[in-house]
Amino acid sequence: MKKRQLGPCVTFFPQPTTLVSTVSSEGLVDIMTASWAGIVSKTPPTIAVSLNKNRKTYENICQTGNFVVNMVPASLAVEADYCGLRSGRDDDKLMVTGLSTAPAHEVEAPLIEECPLNVECRRVQELELGEYRLVLGEIVQIHAADEAFGENGQIDTRTFDPLVYLGGIREYWNLGNKSADAYRDGKKLFPSEE
Amino acid sequence: MKKRQLGPCVTFFPQPTTLVSTVSSEGLVDIMTASWAGIVSKTPPTIAVSLNKNRKTYENICQTGNFVVNMVPASLAVEADYCGLRSGRDDDKLMVTGLSTAPAHEVEAPLIEECPLNVECRRVQELELGEYRLVLGEIVQIHAADEAFGENGQIDTRTFDPLVYLGGIREYWNLGNKSADAYRDGKKLFPSEE
Repeated sequence: MKKRQLGPCVTFFPQPTTLVSTVSSEGLVDIMTASWAGIVSKTPPTIAVSLNKNRKTYENICQTGNFVVNMVPASLAVEADYCGLRSGRDDDKLMVTGLSTAPAHEVEAPLIEECPLNVECRRVQELELGEYRLVLGEIVQIHAADEAFGENGQIDTRTFDPLVYLGGIREYWNLGNKSADAYRDGKKLFPSEE
Repeated sequence: MKKRQLGPCVTFFPQPTTLVSTVSSEGLVDIMTASWAGIVSKTPPTIAVSLNKNRKTYENICQTGNFVVNMVPASLAVEADYCGLRSGRDDDKLMVTGLSTAPAHEVEAPLIEECPLNVECRRVQELELGEYRLVLGEIVQIHAADEAFGENGQIDTRTFDPLVYLGGIREYWNLGNKSADAYRDGKKLFPSEE
């Protein structure tokens, strides 16, 4: 495959589009779009979110130690993009987007009602990376849209319809089709079964 | 939206499917599937990959300090699943999958030829998370499929066709359609333009 070299830059891998919801010490809710987010450990369940150190969201997390990572459905792409462009210091983003909140169970930060998956987190570690802070949150509770669960308990991905962000080229995409089942389809290549 | 509580667990967000390629101190190449991977800083360009501390890949990175994160196209879903299920201590994964390598420019670890994007990394920091190690790599060179670039330099996402992994429910998906342009479509909601 012929390739060209791009040098050291921030390139794209498919990343989740999330809204991080927090509350300030004065009780004001802020929401911010973050795509540098992902599960990083099972022991214990931990999520990592990278935030610019000047963001209001980072300030709020420093004050409360709590945050919620909300999965953005494809239908909210414009709202999510807006929440990444503006600061909670200037706008009331809930008012502008029309998004609503619900109380979390374990942490001092609200769930975003319209997001089909909400992950309650308590900050446990932090790493300095230039202008960014990689905040590690232990997952303490998860809320998932009830309608996504079938009678057998299986989850229907299309009900969540998660929005995928491609960073380097700055595009939001939805999912297409299932390509394979993990921990199963790869067994076709097991040498012992050849 | 009615929701159910799942407790603290590892849930799914759309994550990239990547193959991490490394070389041991004896010069043996290993490739391993990793989906807990993502860009975490622009200053400098940094990628984070979470690996179980018992993996051969982690051992290799400890020895050389180098690794390459390769984007998996949807056409290689079965090969990628296989590379996550087996250990480089037991199988020659390149031989089983038929994947081939090309030399990197800056690091001691090969590129996977069939992957449309290859990110050369030097380990700069590491974080302990239970059984996992979050390895932070400074991006030193990127190789991207030449055919993905249009005459105006724009990148066509469909040429890359990145495979998305949904962890909690263990499914691989491809991308569907573009939902929005980032840093642009959100401006429709700017209060000053209402």
